[in-house]
Amino acid sequence: MCGIVGVISQTPVNQLIYDALLLLQHRGQDAAGIVTMQGTKCFMHKARGMVRDVFRTRNMRALPGQVGLGQVRYPTAGNAYSEEEAQPFYVNAPFGIVLVHNGNLTNAHALKKELFDIDRRHINTESDSEVLINVLAHELERTARELPLTPDKIFEAVAAVHKRIKGSYAVIALIAGHGLLAFRDPFGIRPLVFGEADLPEGKEVMVASESVTLEGTGHRITRDVAPGEAIFIDQAGNVHARQCHDNPSLQPCMFEYVYLARPDSVMDGVSVYQARLNMGETLAQRVISTMPPSEIDVVIPIPESSRPSAMQLAHKLGRPYREGFVKNRYVGRTFIMPGQAKRKKSVRQKLNAIASEFKGRNVLLVDDSIVRGTTSKEIVQMAREAGARKVYMASAAPPVRFPNVYGIDMPTKEELIAHGRSIEEVREFIGADALIYQDVEAMKRVVGALNPQLQGFEASCFDGHYITGDVSVEDFETMREQRQSQGDEEEGPGRSRLALQNAAEQA
Amino acid sequence: MCGIVGVISQTPVNQLIYDALLLLQHRGQDAAGIVTMQGTKCFMHKARGMVRDVFRTRNMRALPGQVGLGQVRYPTAGNAYSEEEAQPFYVNAPFGIVLVHNGNLTNAHALKKELFDIDRRHINTESDSEVLINVLAHELERTARELPLTPDKIFEAVAAVHKRIKGSYAVIALIAGHGLLAFRDPFGIRPLVFGEADLPEGKEVMVASESVTLEGTGHRITRDVAPGEAIFIDQAGNVHARQCHDNPSLQPCMFEYVYLARPDSVMDGVSVYQARLNMGETLAQRVISTMPPSEIDVVIPIPESSRPSAMQLAHKLGRPYREGFVKNRYVGRTFIMPGQAKRKKSVRQKLNAIASEFKGRNVLLVDDSIVRGTTSKEIVQMAREAGARKVYMASAAPPVRFPNVYGIDMPTKEELIAHGRSIEEVREFIGADALIYQDVEAMKRVVGALNPQLQGFEASCFDGHYITGDVSVEDFETMREQRQSQGDEEEGPGRSRLALQNAAEQA
Amino acid sequence: MCGIVGVISQTPVNQLIYDALLLLQHRGQDAAGIVTMQGTKCFMHKARGMVRDVFRTRNMRALPGQVGLGQVRYPTAGNAYSEEEAQPFYVNAPFGIVLVHNGNLTNAHALKKELFDIDRRHINTESDSEVLINVLAHELERTARELPLTPDKIFEAVAAVHKRIKGSYAVIALIAGHGLLAFRDPFGIRPLVFGEADLPEGKEVMVASESVTLEGTGHRITRDVAPGEAIFIDQAGNVHARQCHDNPSLQPCMFEYVYLARPDSVMDGVSVYQARLNMGETLAQRVISTMPPSEIDVVIPIPESSRPSAMQLAHKLGRPYREGFVKNRYVGRTFIMPGQAKRKKSVRQKLNAIASEFKGRNVLLVDDSIVRGTTSKEIVQMAREAGARKVYMASAAPPVRFPNVYGIDMPTKEELIAHGRSIEEVREFIGADALIYQDVEAMKRVVGALNPQLQGFEASCFDGHYITGDVSVEDFETMREQRQSQGDEEEGPGRSRLALQNAAEQA
Amino acid sequence: MCGIVGVISQTPVNQLIYDALLLLQHRGQDAAGIVTMQGTKCFMHKARGMVRDVFRTRNMRALPGQVGLGQVRYPTAGNAYSEEEAQPFYVNAPFGIVLVHNGNLTNAHALKKELFDIDRRHINTESDSEVLINVLAHELERTARELPLTPDKIFEAVAAVHKRIKGSYAVIALIAGHGLLAFRDPFGIRPLVFGEADLPEGKEVMVASESVTLEGTGHRITRDVAPGEAIFIDQAGNVHARQCHDNPSLQPCMFEYVYLARPDSVMDGVSVYQARLNMGETLAQRVISTMPPSEIDVVIPIPESSRPSAMQLAHKLGRPYREGFVKNRYVGRTFIMPGQAKRKKSVRQKLNAIASEFKGRNVLLVDDSIVRGTTSKEIVQMAREAGARKVYMASAAPPVRFPNVYGIDMPTKEELIAHGRSIEEVREFIGADALIYQDVEAMKRVVGALNPQLQGFEASCFDGHYITGDVSVEDFETMREQRQSQGDEEEGPGRSRLALQNAAEQA
Repeated sequence: MCGIVGVISQTPVNQLIYDALLLLQHRGQDAAGIVTMQGTKCFMHKARGMVRDVFRTRNMRALPGQVGLGQVRYPTAGNAYSEEEAQPFYVNAPFGIVLVHNGNLTNAHALKKELFDIDRRHINTESDSEVLINVLAHELERTARELPLTPDKIFEAVAAVHKRIKGSYAVIALIAGHGLLAFRDPFGIRPLVFGEADLPEGKEVMVASESVTLEGTGHRITRDVAPGEAIFIDQAGNVHARQCHDNPSLQPCMFEYVYLARPDSVMDGVSVYQARLNMGETLAQRVISTMPPSEIDVVIPIPESSRPSAMQLAHKLGRPYREGFVKNRYVGRTFIMPGQAKRKKSVRQKLNAIASEFKGRNVLLVDDSIVRGTTSKEIVQMAREAGARKVYMASAAPPVRFPNVYGIDMPTKEELIAHGRSIEEVREFIGADALIYQDVEAMKRVVGALNPQLQGFEASCFDGHYITGDVSVEDFETMREQRQSQGDEEEGPGRSRLALQNAAEQA
Repeated sequence: MCGIVGVISQTPVNQLIYDALLLLQHRGQDAAGIVTMQGTKCFMHKARGMVRDVFRTRNMRALPGQVGLGQVRYPTAGNAYSEEEAQPFYVNAPFGIVLVHNGNLTNAHALKKELFDIDRRHINTESDSEVLINVLAHELERTARELPLTPDKIFEAVAAVHKRIKGSYAVIALIAGHGLLAFRDPFGIRPLVFGEADLPEGKEVMVASESVTLEGTGHRITRDVAPGEAIFIDQAGNVHARQCHDNPSLQPCMFEYVYLARPDSVMDGVSVYQARLNMGETLAQRVISTMPPSEIDVVIPIPESSRPSAMQLAHKLGRPYREGFVKNRYVGRTFIMPGQAKRKKSVRQKLNAIASEFKGRNVLLVDDSIVRGTTSKEIVQMAREAGARKVYMASAAPPVRFPNVYGIDMPTKEELIAHGRSIEEVREFIGADALIYQDVEAMKRVVGALNPQLQGFEASCFDGHYITGDVSVEDFETMREQRQSQGDEEEGPGRSRLALQNAAEQA
Repeated sequence: MCGIVGVISQTPVNQLIYDALLLLQHRGQDAAGIVTMQGTKCFMHKARGMVRDVFRTRNMRALPGQVGLGQVRYPTAGNAYSEEEAQPFYVNAPFGIVLVHNGNLTNAHALKKELFDIDRRHINTESDSEVLINVLAHELERTARELPLTPDKIFEAVAAVHKRIKGSYAVIALIAGHGLLAFRDPFGIRPLVFGEADLPEGKEVMVASESVTLEGTGHRITRDVAPGEAIFIDQAGNVHARQCHDNPSLQPCMFEYVYLARPDSVMDGVSVYQARLNMGETLAQRVISTMPPSEIDVVIPIPESSRPSAMQLAHKLGRPYREGFVKNRYVGRTFIMPGQAKRKKSVRQKLNAIASEFKGRNVLLVDDSIVRGTTSKEIVQMAREAGARKVYMASAAPPVRFPNVYGIDMPTKEELIAHGRSIEEVREFIGADALIYQDVEAMKRVVGALNPQLQGFEASCFDGHYITGDVSVEDFETMREQRQSQGDEEEGPGRSRLALQNAAEQA
Repeated sequence: MCGIVGVISQTPVNQLIYDALLLLQHRGQDAAGIVTMQGTKCFMHKARGMVRDVFRTRNMRALPGQVGLGQVRYPTAGNAYSEEEAQPFYVNAPFGIVLVHNGNLTNAHALKKELFDIDRRHINTESDSEVLINVLAHELERTARELPLTPDKIFEAVAAVHKRIKGSYAVIALIAGHGLLAFRDPFGIRPLVFGEADLPEGKEVMVASESVTLEGTGHRITRDVAPGEAIFIDQAGNVHARQCHDNPSLQPCMFEYVYLARPDSVMDGVSVYQARLNMGETLAQRVISTMPPSEIDVVIPIPESSRPSAMQLAHKLGRPYREGFVKNRYVGRTFIMPGQAKRKKSVRQKLNAIASEFKGRNVLLVDDSIVRGTTSKEIVQMAREAGARKVYMASAAPPVRFPNVYGIDMPTKEELIAHGRSIEEVREFIGADALIYQDVEAMKRVVGALNPQLQGFEASCFDGHYITGDVSVEDFETMREQRQSQGDEEEGPGRSRLALQNAAEQA
């Protein structure tokens, strides 16, 4: 999972992209990168770390230009399907292209071989985004044999890209000397929205993963990029748009609404906050059908993203809502000291209970979802130690039973507590007195109701249905194993490869 | 304002102090430092930045030992009264002393002259903590002429220190080869609590600013250090305690309860969370006496620390509580680019309204306090733009009318919106349809009720009463001006002085 | 000017290339870079600074593989013709190519336009090396349409490159998955030599700028790469060689012998040390024809590279040779302090005279060459202050009258003291009692005599003859001006562009 | 071994001290530090590395003031007697003192215990310089009980310091708010010289280890500081001087003349260059008494410091002098790569032979001294491989038979090749056809002849006579062992201790 942004302005964009990345930081804290373009020259800075750490004054000064893009990356170590290398990526032929990508290609492995064997293009990382930029480069080379490069030729290339790649992808690319291209996979699995601002210097157009990014930087929302659609913004700020897929269908990722997106974003016509309130409402019905609300003394959310659902649930149940857990916002590391025993990390370093809210009460804890179950188990234990009489747990999302292949960092199915277990078995594992899960169909219904144009959801983690049709859970597991063993053999040093990317800085 | 911690263990303490500082990070994000002691050698690492940025593996490895202390510092640029330099401080005679200090000495200027002229001690920074360590060193030198150094001699020195220094101070000091000393000013203005854990290797004693620090690192709370009291923990972990002041009186800082401390801390017998709930309750009475609750459609807190008060207030009013603002947790910088116009920062980058919670409603916004009023003004405006019909504002704290001299970063009185203005004038300034403030006496009463042993509060910002008796608001302003002009003349380069502290690292 | 090295081994090469770069460090101290290849993946680290500063343990660990190349770069700030960006350069299509280049293309400007307009290849820097790699890539793409890639196809591409590019170039390139390519311009202006070692793991082949690099790392010299020739070393270490130019002619750069190369190198069959001795001998004849040797009390070299010439000259004159100047090997910076006057740098910080060797004597100072004349002037003055009675100056090189377009950092002709001035005028300027210059024909004769196969020298700085035939001094100056003004307009920020190269490191 | 400098000016001194340290860099390349003083505030920057790497613009800007001192440190890892920690050192009472020290205290261990037990001063490192500053601080505290602090009281303190400390010491100390103090041990073992310059802003006085430092920064040499003498320069630049020892005797370290000092320095009235010429002369006599000069075809120095001796020797023998070895000036590291075999370092990476100077000849190699013998052995081997018929070796210094306790980094006596071996045995070890050593008495005589005021030399490495009289070779070895084992036990982590010194910088 990542956050991406691109902008064309008539005034320098480095600070603007920086600010935009801060507003996307919740989507990825592992690495950050910005590319700007001045004339036909590109300037890049990217590194591991959070935005405020990656960009210092000297880096910002080295990012001139009125056009640019940026990315924040989610930490996905050990997951062979996710982005391994920091973005943006660059290829110098044709034209010079720089690209950022949010999503995951399910046929990256096959494409890579094809690129190497047939297109003679060198892929230097394990990143599917490097595959994607090379496919795009190859297709642009083909459609744009004759100059000049028109929006039509670009859209033709995107149509060809749609035919070659599978999976989820929201993409923003700079074509040196030409403009900004953005497109989205035919199911619109990953989000992409654009808007504009009128500056004294002229029009400014921004494309980004979330609407809050546009609002927080003073842009009017124009609309979401449609599934399969491409938009091309030329250097004057004119927006060209075309549907580049034969059979698009809007089925966005359900996890955005469950916990990925900021609550104040609106995605594909659905307010994330409202979606969470609605989930709280249907969850309340499940609670009521499980136990009399009077048995619950207090509803306590597990911070942060479950709060709207929990609040609405409490409201619906007519029971008090109290914030009984305090989250420690400052997260550090456990250092390995030679010859020194490791201090055991307690969940209490991350979360602390306010005893007075638990003492002697029957508490209903509400989480956004339950993945591995281990944290839930510890939290239930904490609630008991804080004096709770009974501890009930409710999950605003349905049981997570299947792995994700579309760019969300998820454990293997073996590690998913709800995989192959009954709800009663999960309840027993986490040690709660009762466990209430959201219903998958109810969730789809109440979130879908917020925008009638939605044709469904990518909700494979819950329902096991992979909408791109090219991957079954079994394939997925096999593929992962192959790649991992291959990775071990082929790629030598286990550490992250920095190939071909390095600061030409004063040592 | 700072957070401090000290520990004596029978096992290495570097990771433990690091974890403790993370649990104090909300008390200061400007700088961090750790000192450990092994045998009679001290090891230090300190730097500007947040804990997770300041300490890397190589720094942690260079912090061996089973005894140590640490500090996180609040950013107080431009405030001549607060700590200018990173802590801990060190003097090598007598014994070798390392010290961390939370608070502010009101007679630091006079003491500094005295130290230079009479004690011939060199003070190399503007920090009152460097003054404090030298006063302590001088007194210890006097009381401990004859070896060995006993707890009695140490307590005698602390008693002498109490006589010389004025203001607020919670102090933890390492005496090389001897142990850990902690003491607190005679009013207990700044908090200090201690506790212990039983490890397989033996007893571990920790002293820290907040109880969450102890709980989060697995320690039982023993009790708060009493005002005027000193405790000395020898290297075996034995705690010696003595009252070192003739006339102590527990009157802690009210601002800890208002917004400084974590809600899950208990300070001087008062749960911070409960204090905030109680403030919400009395605030509700003020609201009711101002307007019929039915005029309020929804109560919306301004995140973060006003949430408990707002929730209780909503409960008391019987009106819905909704989290209509989302705070951006990722804060960045505004870079100054040569020849490039600065992008205007919008308050929207820090806070975003969820329109559906405001649209067409009369909203009661609740903040923990109103200091300069400029942010409140912007927030009221945001609420209106989000569609609110009427915007009422309530402050969980009374009007802030006077500057703080006890270590809390506050603007000058001229910058305080409530200084010399009626409530109606403040309301007009912030543009709200109504403005309701907490009542100072009610606040003291309901917070004080949580622990009968409290003899009052340091609440000078609200009531103008400076409990140490040595400073009037007028003195304070004069003093500040003197110091600032002096600072300008004497200290040469305006930038932070790194004097005598520098990493002997591989360049 | 640069130093370059490439190697194919059967064991890791990172330390080997590092050691080789240290042995080339005298050829460039501005920046350094290494690329290694493992499987088909490339790993790069490059940065400004000297080798020992650029490469730390963490960088070295990130350079796995048994094939690689490296470069050290000469500081050429402000010279639009020289390398602006750190090498190596990389393009990902076709195959993935990494390249290092020593020399200067005289038609880079025209080629760049051609690449952009016709080949649609994006050039992101001002470096002619980036132009070169793209020309090579384009030609390889053409000749290698059909797989597999054979040495023949590679040599065909080099032949095409020779036809397109003009100027001086010694090149080493890695073709991912295939091997190491090295070639040299048709006049062999810049040096390139190769050799091999037999390791337990198998054969190791190294190509480098100087023979000392091979000797110092334990390799037998095979031979120099011939002008116009290309050699290709496959991954098993087999060397394929072919002449790729119709009309090659060995005319190496005279400056290598004068001062660039290490004295213990042998270049194109000529021992640099012996060449310098010979220059001393012919210089002696010039001295003798100017003044009776008995008027000279002592011969004193100006360190470092003039020592062999001076020694032989003294020997020939039968006068004592004494090292009367000591050079400070540790060079620092002059810092600009705000509001602080700059301390005047004295030549004495770089060079110091041992007074006893000058006092009351007639001294003959010997320098390798005289470029701007300003240093010579100061040195003559120092000799006088040290007590010399008469100060004669001899230059082992002839008058430097013309600029260099083949990669040696030289001032414009206006700054050359000998440009448009008589020797008497130069003598007057530097303040010597006599000035004796090497004779250009004598120099060519005695250096040429060391290898009969030499067909001449690139000695344009002395004789104004530009052997590539495509550039006159006038063109050169015009071109420079055009580029500089263009650079100012087009490229925005005056600082070095780090475009697209940046460490994806932990911030 | 170290280089030290101090200066009092009427204009900022940061750049001046930086330049001075560059001129002392040959005396130590392990660490560097500068302290400046403005008003009574001190500013420090120190770090490991060479001067040009340690000081960047931001560090220089943080060093304001017109008074300051600096140090460069020799790498002495593993030698318990030498400085472990980067200088300068600081104590804050009395007055604030900053100190740099070149030399080694032979009674540091006993003094440290005394300081801890009696003076209750905390010593946080293993550095004898920290002991020294504390002894000075203690004595100043005693003599300066009554203010003001006069030069007399300072000299009285120095006299007391002379009584307590043993060994070698050249010291420069800043007394905050007062001025610069410099003094030298009663034998003048380590050098110290001072001089002045007349600037427009007023008089500038500099004290430094070598005369080149003064000359290279534009100062007139006043004179050497006498053994036992102290000079105090007040802030106006007035120099106060007094002999502070009852029985001083000028007996400087012979090693300065052999290889430590720069040849262009004059130390205690002796030109280092002239001393080396003279050593060459007496060495020539030894050669002549060993073999007919006609058997020698050529004299070849082993660079760098043996060149003057070799040149004079060749002159005396009437044989040609040729520089047959080229030294690689760029030294790098050998990296340890996990799971990768270490490439064997060849001496050829440091030194390369020019074959034509060796081929078929009988060569006399001249080195400044022979310590372990291993390098000599390799060089003899290189000469043979380069084609020499016979290889003779001459050492400009006598056999090194005893360890050094006065601050020169030397191996233990077991590692000294000449310890307990006959010259014939040494010759056999290094594999030369003949070995000629300097005669110790001849050396003392010809160097001593250059200044009649010299009363002898500290030449214990050659003659086993330790002039401070408090240490025998046996003691020394015992002491070393004690300390080392103690160090292992007490000091915990084997790495360098950074105690209490750390950059308060932006992380």
